[in-house]
Amino acid sequence: MPPTARHWVIGVDLGGTKIALGLIDPQDRIIAQHRIATHPEEGPEPTVARIAVAVETLKKRLSPGASVDALGICTPGPVDHVTGMLIDPPNLPGLHNAPLRDLLSVRLGIPVWLEHDAKAAALGEFHYGAGRGERSMVYVVVGTGVGGAIILDGHLYRGEHNSAGEIGHTMLDQEGDLCACGSRGCVETYLTGPWLARRYQRARRYEPAPGKPRGASEGDTTITGEMVAKRARAGDELAQQVMTGAGEALGIAVATMAMVLDIELYVIGGSVAKAGDLLLAPAREMMPHHCYQSVGRRVQIVESELGDEGPILGCGWLARQRLAQA
Amino acid sequence: MPPTARHWVIGVDLGGTKIALGLIDPQDRIIAQHRIATHPEEGPEPTVARIAVAVETLKKRLSPGASVDALGICTPGPVDHVTGMLIDPPNLPGLHNAPLRDLLSVRLGIPVWLEHDAKAAALGEFHYGAGRGERSMVYVVVGTGVGGAIILDGHLYRGEHNSAGEIGHTMLDQEGDLCACGSRGCVETYLTGPWLARRYQRARRYEPAPGKPRGASEGDTTITGEMVAKRARAGDELAQQVMTGAGEALGIAVATMAMVLDIELYVIGGSVAKAGDLLLAPAREMMPHHCYQSVGRRVQIVESELGDEGPILGCGWLARQRLAQA
Repeated sequence: MPPTARHWVIGVDLGGTKIALGLIDPQDRIIAQHRIATHPEEGPEPTVARIAVAVETLKKRLSPGASVDALGICTPGPVDHVTGMLIDPPNLPGLHNAPLRDLLSVRLGIPVWLEHDAKAAALGEFHYGAGRGERSMVYVVVGTGVGGAIILDGHLYRGEHNSAGEIGHTMLDQEGDLCACGSRGCVETYLTGPWLARRYQRARRYEPAPGKPRGASEGDTTITGEMVAKRARAGDELAQQVMTGAGEALGIAVATMAMVLDIELYVIGGSVAKAGDLLLAPAREMMPHHCYQSVGRRVQIVESELGDEGPILGCGWLARQRLAQA
Repeated sequence: MPPTARHWVIGVDLGGTKIALGLIDPQDRIIAQHRIATHPEEGPEPTVARIAVAVETLKKRLSPGASVDALGICTPGPVDHVTGMLIDPPNLPGLHNAPLRDLLSVRLGIPVWLEHDAKAAALGEFHYGAGRGERSMVYVVVGTGVGGAIILDGHLYRGEHNSAGEIGHTMLDQEGDLCACGSRGCVETYLTGPWLARRYQRARRYEPAPGKPRGASEGDTTITGEMVAKRARAGDELAQQVMTGAGEALGIAVATMAMVLDIELYVIGGSVAKAGDLLLAPAREMMPHHCYQSVGRRVQIVESELGDEGPILGCGWLARQRLAQA
């Protein structure tokens, strides 16, 4: 009997602000979800304690006689999946060097797997979403940062130090904007929510807002990437230009990966990807201009099918793998 | 007894102008080499006949009682290693769709392997040269074009359609020069011999040559990449600038590959790589500016150890693999 045929597992997506948990049945369906705030500043033990409470809440939804047999949890990187420790994720200051896997495993009394969130989401899409039935794919997550994960011949490809797929800080324009990483013109400086907002605001300084004199600001310094996408959809030309520029940057990044990796399927997830074709149409338009014709014809750029459920289902899949090893 | 312990094989590097053959002993040493002109316009059968004559010449150098048991041959791509056919390599017009592997195998009566030249050179460096003892590496060939090949965990990584590692036509500058492939600002437009020559000539139109008025030409329109490297070494500042620009382009390309692949070792071969540190020093200088610090610290950019013998030894290795399958 394959492990997938009998176990209930829990997948946990631990982000900078919230922790999303999903109870997954033996047929790989999310039966119930639960969300709590992260409060990383409290440190590892209180975080683990609160996750344990949320797990108890989800257990009430188990079928009679069933138990939760394993848990997978993912967090922003860098993560050491071998030791089960977070390293120093910038958005989780209280959890640096936390042995999260072992703390959770001891607390819950079940096997736990800790993984980087982009990799977990990639595994979710590969096994249950946009990558079903494929041999290889690249998952690109576009949110407050740009990350990626590569599936080669059915397996997560980690590289020599578990950092493969980091497309966000490859160069698009040597004279481009200064990125937080210290380089100029990184892919991230075109694509993330904060950069969409920044580029939109910058553009408006040079173009009059509707009914306003040139250079006028609307004063909304708290504009977000989601707002730029929303305005683009509502017909705001500057917002459309920013989204198109972001999509073109994504298209070039995909072209580069396609030429290096010779992989056909690129699944785009994360909060900014929810803009859909506002982002993906210009990406599909630009991509073939920066790779061989034969490569460009084969490459597909598609939206994540699972959205926020991708990391949870990927963690569930990892939990099952952990059980198979045990 | 491993196959390597008993067989003599021949490696053949078929290029646009010459065919270089090497007789390789059971200890993987090239015992004798022979070169003939290519004449691809003659078509497959005469080419095969002339290779067969060259093979006979090399056989005279066999140890008493020994025989040549297999042959590996590499050519510019695209090549179909599964069917053993050249597809449509631009520099070999008479050999399009030639079933070179089977023609040679029938003619010589021994197993033959046909491979893309960058991949053969990569295997040579990996097994006998700069990649010895490593698990993974990327080989970049810089000559009249820029190609690449990836070794992952000891095996050639081909990708989904055998085109992985094609770094030459990834983008460095969206507003850069128009490349022969139709895109703008490809890596190739900075690095190849013809482009070095072109950039040098272009630079001289704006800067006076020593002792000449601004804009004067020396009329040497047949300047080559090798001449640019030679002049750079002799102190010509414009030539040095061109070589530095080429090296920086290589450094950015390596940074991109390092971020995507998380592979540490980059071995640079091909005719332009013979410029050595004129090219590699600026590459090493630029690379860390376009990847994570942790990645930049680990990446090594080294010159090919085997030079022109790399493809021959790689073909020899492939010939042994072919024997192991037979």
